[in-house]
Amino acid sequence: MEYYSKQISDLIGELSSLPGIGVKSAQRMAFHILHMPKDRAKSLAEAILSARENVQFCKECFTLTDREICPICASKKRNKKVIMVVEDTRDLVAYEKVGKYEGVYHVLNGTMNPMQGIGPNDIKIKELFERLSKEDVEEVIIATNSTTEGEATAMYITKLIKPSGIKVSRIASGVPVGGDLECIDEVTLLRALEGRQEL
Amino acid sequence: MEYYSKQISDLIGELSSLPGIGVKSAQRMAFHILHMPKDRAKSLAEAILSARENVQFCKECFTLTDREICPICASKKRNKKVIMVVEDTRDLVAYEKVGKYEGVYHVLNGTMNPMQGIGPNDIKIKELFERLSKEDVEEVIIATNSTTEGEATAMYITKLIKPSGIKVSRIASGVPVGGDLECIDEVTLLRALEGRQEL
Repeated sequence: MEYYSKQISDLIGELSSLPGIGVKSAQRMAFHILHMPKDRAKSLAEAILSARENVQFCKECFTLTDREICPICASKKRNKKVIMVVEDTRDLVAYEKVGKYEGVYHVLNGTMNPMQGIGPNDIKIKELFERLSKEDVEEVIIATNSTTEGEATAMYITKLIKPSGIKVSRIASGVPVGGDLECIDEVTLLRALEGRQEL
Repeated sequence: MEYYSKQISDLIGELSSLPGIGVKSAQRMAFHILHMPKDRAKSLAEAILSARENVQFCKECFTLTDREICPICASKKRNKKVIMVVEDTRDLVAYEKVGKYEGVYHVLNGTMNPMQGIGPNDIKIKELFERLSKEDVEEVIIATNSTTEGEATAMYITKLIKPSGIKVSRIASGVPVGGDLECIDEVTLLRALEGRQEL
């Protein structure tokens, strides 16, 4: 038996397909929406449509943006000779918030994940090599996450770039600043030890 | 500085206004939506609009439904002489899932909350008394939550019904079945003690 009327079940179903949203959260969100003023619900729906319609990949770095070329790639202040490879637009934003990086980015929009059938052609790797062959790039900084998929993607890209003679680097992994050694996993501790630097 | 383009920030803003959704979750959801096929994003937006447009209060019990009169109120199998008062449609559904209750419901769509300025006229209390004056009701079961607001609302309704001679009851509060005494708060333990029944 259906306990909710169709529109409510449909809404709960749609919301629970979002990442990190279980059925209970989806129900809570759905009832919140049902009690919203109509124009607020409309503006939520329109934000979804408008974002999906108008946001596209930057033609150079493949970040998600509302322009053909994103503000970072369009800026004359950025050093185009250094490209930081990140998994997605959120990672780019994380580094932009730091505000110290002056190069440009390349957003893969995913990582290689053989278990889920995501190979190198499913993310923007080919597009990275097109940039490297056309532009005068001195260094590629690989800033994919320190996950199995992120590391595998980093290794794959590194192997392909090496023969070209372009410098490839990987962001350091180790103990986060302010982190308590006791609370940090063993792999991170080992990485921090291996990556130790002389003072 | 805006790190995301306007449509993306707008979408994150709209999503983070939903209950239980912080900025990080809203970002994750927004990027999930941006990577969805367009027709999936459209069906999410349409589910929001359609639910908000077509779902209304049942004219009898004020549950959220797509009909004038909800299936429970319209059913001839339900005992209209017993009304269970609940806070919202989700609570009604919780009791319907149990499947043992044969009476009808009255959905308050909220609780009295003086701190937030929600008084008796802001929830469907007047409508409950209209039903009680028109229909032949034998018992009102108050099933608001065991929160401060739920209890205050229960007391308020009880006081108003008492003079009419209609039986008023309150669902039991106590230790949840399967609950470990050690993990249960003191107020609940006290309630369970006070509500003890002879065996």
